[in-house]
Amino acid sequence: MAVAGGPEIERLVQLLAKLPGLGPRSARRAALFLLKRRALVMQPLAAALTEAAEKVQPCRICGNLDTVDPCALCRDPRRDGTIVCVVADVADLWAMERSGAFRGRYHVLGGLLSALDGVRPEDLAIAGLLARVPADGVAEVILALNATVDGQTTAHYVAERLAAAAAGVRVTRLAHGVPVGGELDYLDDGTLAAAMKARR
Amino acid sequence: MAVAGGPEIERLVQLLAKLPGLGPRSARRAALFLLKRRALVMQPLAAALTEAAEKVQPCRICGNLDTVDPCALCRDPRRDGTIVCVVADVADLWAMERSGAFRGRYHVLGGLLSALDGVRPEDLAIAGLLARVPADGVAEVILALNATVDGQTTAHYVAERLAAAAAGVRVTRLAHGVPVGGELDYLDDGTLAAAMKARR
Repeated sequence: MAVAGGPEIERLVQLLAKLPGLGPRSARRAALFLLKRRALVMQPLAAALTEAAEKVQPCRICGNLDTVDPCALCRDPRRDGTIVCVVADVADLWAMERSGAFRGRYHVLGGLLSALDGVRPEDLAIAGLLARVPADGVAEVILALNATVDGQTTAHYVAERLAAAAAGVRVTRLAHGVPVGGELDYLDDGTLAAAMKARR
Repeated sequence: MAVAGGPEIERLVQLLAKLPGLGPRSARRAALFLLKRRALVMQPLAAALTEAAEKVQPCRICGNLDTVDPCALCRDPRRDGTIVCVVADVADLWAMERSGAFRGRYHVLGGLLSALDGVRPEDLAIAGLLARVPADGVAEVILALNATVDGQTTAHYVAERLAAAAAGVRVTRLAHGVPVGGELDYLDDGTLAAAMKARR
């Protein structure tokens, strides 16, 4: 028996332990925390989970998660529809929005190509992107993908497919360089070399 | 805006970020994790939260959290009612149950005396313990409280009150010593000295 207090608490702990960042010990702590704050946190959290599970869905255009479809970003007339930022995941879209550096539209691939994990081009939302770019008159596609092997493989693949499907569209990538606030001493050699090469 | 995707996701992230062990970043990760596993995790978690919030309550005898009152531990006829283990919190009761080393009853104080945090004796479930020990014919009270200043202050206070309220009851404390699997080299001097003194 992992906890004393009946199957209801046991089940709650087991489900909380599935969340990324929570293990069995922190799930027990979280369950007790919630049981002591029923009205303030536990019931609102249950309601928020139910509501989000019912209402949130992927946007049919870009793949972002929202309660409206198309999503608020795709509907926003103030955003520039001629620039599309391609991201692997909704988490990356959120990160980009927090930075406030981009006011165009998005396209969420839903992952990265990976020989190791068996992710093939048809598993990603690439066809939608290839159809969307010429149809919407997109002038620039920014490939904002991880600076990892899988990320760069995916970027290369998407760029090639875009060149074939939408001739004339400009395909760009995020710059490599020193993170703001980063110390040179702690930076890997590859990043430092890239930052030096792209100096201005 | 912390996340793109509407107030429902925003609210879910804010509530998840209140859980101990989750910050804003891991709360966003957890929200996305849940939104991608609606049927398998998100809806069951919402149901488990609602059910536990409705059914779980503190036991009127010992303070344990359970769906029945008195709790399953207080009802269990196989447990020895003449030994009561006093713990600060339900989390400590769970830890004790996981160890499997105790088959008596519990008493949850609901915290520890603390001059710094302004926790006074009347804030803890001490009166219930003092009434219960003579009434139930309890022969031994084990003070299983943290080996910290607050824990030991509380243990001292409870032991004194017990001596006055229930003369003849045996009051014991957990032994200090080397944790099983622990390396001497990493142990603090106080623990090592206590383990040496209590050698057998």
